[in-house]
Amino acid sequence: MRYLDPSFSLEGPKGAAEVGHPVVKVRGTEALEVEDHLAVEEPLEIRMGGHPFSVTMRTPGHDEDLVAGLLHAEGIIQDADGVDVIARYRAADGEADEGNVVNVLLEGDVRVARERLRRSLVASSSCGVCGKVTVDSLRTACPPISCDAVVPATLFPRLSAAMSAAQPTFDRTGGLHAAGLFDLAGRLLVLREDIGRHNAVDKVVGHMLRGRRLPLDRHILMVSGRASFEIMQKAWMARIPFVAAVSAPSSLAVQMAVSAGMTLVGFLRGGAFNVYAGAQRVDATAQELV
Amino acid sequence: MRYLDPSFSLEGPKGAAEVGHPVVKVRGTEALEVEDHLAVEEPLEIRMGGHPFSVTMRTPGHDEDLVAGLLHAEGIIQDADGVDVIARYRAADGEADEGNVVNVLLEGDVRVARERLRRSLVASSSCGVCGKVTVDSLRTACPPISCDAVVPATLFPRLSAAMSAAQPTFDRTGGLHAAGLFDLAGRLLVLREDIGRHNAVDKVVGHMLRGRRLPLDRHILMVSGRASFEIMQKAWMARIPFVAAVSAPSSLAVQMAVSAGMTLVGFLRGGAFNVYAGAQRVDATAQELV
Repeated sequence: MRYLDPSFSLEGPKGAAEVGHPVVKVRGTEALEVEDHLAVEEPLEIRMGGHPFSVTMRTPGHDEDLVAGLLHAEGIIQDADGVDVIARYRAADGEADEGNVVNVLLEGDVRVARERLRRSLVASSSCGVCGKVTVDSLRTACPPISCDAVVPATLFPRLSAAMSAAQPTFDRTGGLHAAGLFDLAGRLLVLREDIGRHNAVDKVVGHMLRGRRLPLDRHILMVSGRASFEIMQKAWMARIPFVAAVSAPSSLAVQMAVSAGMTLVGFLRGGAFNVYAGAQRVDATAQELV
Repeated sequence: MRYLDPSFSLEGPKGAAEVGHPVVKVRGTEALEVEDHLAVEEPLEIRMGGHPFSVTMRTPGHDEDLVAGLLHAEGIIQDADGVDVIARYRAADGEADEGNVVNVLLEGDVRVARERLRRSLVASSSCGVCGKVTVDSLRTACPPISCDAVVPATLFPRLSAAMSAAQPTFDRTGGLHAAGLFDLAGRLLVLREDIGRHNAVDKVVGHMLRGRRLPLDRHILMVSGRASFEIMQKAWMARIPFVAAVSAPSSLAVQMAVSAGMTLVGFLRGGAFNVYAGAQRVDATAQELV
């Protein structure tokens, strides 16, 4: 396992909801490389009358329904008559991300609708203008993480146990995400719960930043639920070499982990987990030094 | 159960991560009203130098860490020296939501940072300027749903079975959320999967809108995972009287369901579920007409 790293080929057919890729499955002391499937996460840029308007991370498919539903939820259109055209954008200049840009033409007074939508939409930190752009620009602004640490595979199952033990609010509400920061020996340094997984990560990193303990380049971040693009971006900025998630990573999360030189562990449950990137940092044969 | 509706008192201590409230637990044909806990979801408005800047839905607590972590993830600050002050805002005019507004003063050239943050933040449809404002304005724009339908409690467990059977991509990736729309007899009309739960709901409503089948006032929306504020808002706009979720609802989701006159079911697993609002529309004694 130390020398076994899946070669990633995340290019699926355009518009697919899932993409195949190799993954290292760890079950106790067994490690096996197999073909697995990832849910695709890609940005959809919505333009209105040709003007860039909003970007949402989504799984490709039924994009016209997505746009119509979004405009309805925001009170911009009442019914099908409110929309003239929802068209997929084809950029001649190669600027637009093929298949991930739609242009909307509304019926009626467009200016009013545009102003209303602008006010009703709220800034979020979920992504840059586009996943691809953000990955590229992050790679420029933020060099890959060159951490030479190798941890034993037996370390990861201990992390989830420590997380569960330290989640008081989740126990009572069942409704909170958690993010925990560990050192390379598996000691829990800080844990935060929040209704938003990305908020929990921000609270953990913010805690360490305010304590003047950045960069976190000898640390492991563990999150409840899934690993999205957004979680990986935050970890990369904090220089965290290891990210572990209870559930599945998205395609963009894996792509970003590869770009960043990060180790990404998913489906960490009981004694089992999958390694989606950076498997050279996980040693299935070593004895753990406790 | 038909005549049993919990009286909601969602006012917890300011800044609490959870809040107690009554819930109707349904287990097979048994229905019991008990005290339960909800994870608190509230908007945090971030101002910079006094100017409104960004709003994020979050669970109160460690707000200064949240803001510091967010600014770091966006590349605005590198370390603790990048921030001069993160202060909780106290509005004299009663305009600001007490405890949910922080003001940030950065060190160095604030204009550059502000412009950079503005460009790096992306519009999302997650909420209005503030949960409270949005609930109030929605109540004005969107009258409560006065649906007199009553469905048998035995209907809900059948919905999850139908959802699972119709989720092909989830089976292979384990990484997608789903939203399904049912009629009052429990027939699945449309199901969509997406990396974002809110996108799956938009796709479902958008599909019905484009088919000229709105309003959805004789329908049930079921979502995988949790019920957030955002899901309830979208359902309300589409006039859907019943929303069911596999996991927990947030405090704001319950508050919105009460305001909208919607029935909100959570923790729908196997034969068991909880009713968080509008329990008068769920009949635990009736025989289901299949």
